[in-house]
Amino acid sequence: MSRKKGKLYVITGPSGTGKGSICKEILKDIENEFSVSMTTREAREGEIHGKDYFFVTEEEFLDNIEKGNFLEHARVFGNLYGTPKDMVIKQLERGRNVILDIDVQGALQVKKAMPEAIMIFLLPPSLGELRKRLEGRGTDKADVIEKRLSGALSEIKLIGEYDYYVINDDIDTAISSVKSIMTAEECRVPDKVRDIIKKYEQEEKGE
Amino acid sequence: MSRKKGKLYVITGPSGTGKGSICKEILKDIENEFSVSMTTREAREGEIHGKDYFFVTEEEFLDNIEKGNFLEHARVFGNLYGTPKDMVIKQLERGRNVILDIDVQGALQVKKAMPEAIMIFLLPPSLGELRKRLEGRGTDKADVIEKRLSGALSEIKLIGEYDYYVINDDIDTAISSVKSIMTAEECRVPDKVRDIIKKYEQEEKGE
Repeated sequence: MSRKKGKLYVITGPSGTGKGSICKEILKDIENEFSVSMTTREAREGEIHGKDYFFVTEEEFLDNIEKGNFLEHARVFGNLYGTPKDMVIKQLERGRNVILDIDVQGALQVKKAMPEAIMIFLLPPSLGELRKRLEGRGTDKADVIEKRLSGALSEIKLIGEYDYYVINDDIDTAISSVKSIMTAEECRVPDKVRDIIKKYEQEEKGE
Repeated sequence: MSRKKGKLYVITGPSGTGKGSICKEILKDIENEFSVSMTTREAREGEIHGKDYFFVTEEEFLDNIEKGNFLEHARVFGNLYGTPKDMVIKQLERGRNVILDIDVQGALQVKKAMPEAIMIFLLPPSLGELRKRLEGRGTDKADVIEKRLSGALSEIKLIGEYDYYVINDDIDTAISSVKSIMTAEECRVPDKVRDIIKKYEQEEKGE
């Protein structure tokens, strides 16, 4: 029997909805692997090349863009960040699930490149609660928080592009919902099976 | 905000795969309700009309068939059995999930009548294991078991009509998988949302 292919899970949501904490928990399962991003920013102390990021020069990064080597990439505060396609594909073929913790715009790029990706959108219980969380982190100034909040609303309007949504009210419930989604996806009758059968049915009906 | 509608779960699989035990566990959740069937067979001692079955006469049953009141019905050993449509719809509208524990043929009738039903197919770990379980029950003679086994294989070939499959190797794992499927379905971005967005996208593209 051929080895089962892994599945690509894209976990996204507005800034402050808890993508990081949820992904960290999901990655405790050895079936799941994190996708290591490539970046042009300098390594911080303790960061390991190939584990935290692949640290490359601007030239190398641009060369990779040109070769179409990224599932998605973006420039943030002057630095380039991207998800290397070949790494993800290799992991999937080894039967591992790949988890992408990624912003909403990047997530939609990934979906275009790999439509089979399972798209999960994390939502805050409310914009008011999101504001509280962003203020509580104490890392952003008031104007940045306002920007993040209005960004959140535009992002939430893209929810129709996603397969699942999880409201992160209680973190444990949210983690358990994401795990349930992954279990359910393992139980899905593959679309391929249905496509094959549909082909014969249409033939029989003379369509 | 309007009350959320419930979902219809059809749980099926060949005889001996453990539909009954799994449904019993799922029904412990107060969100979920069992669909009470209608039958022409006589009530056994202790069976309650409206709880175990709706016991009706052959005439009443045939009248219900004629009026299109069943999601599915079948004659088994001379008696008629059916799932009343209006009961299921009422429960769904009250926001309850409805669980149908039903044979494979009946399940496909239900899907035709209500394509939004979520179809779960229970599989035995192997035909050999299914044989062991059927023999272990001690309720069927050898020739009936052979018939059930070949029936199981024909039924398994219909798996392409289903959304999910769950292999009942370990009962607790199987129950947990069914529960995960139900949780994941609660997290699904409704098709309606996607349909609305698609309509505007096509308009924009001038399709």
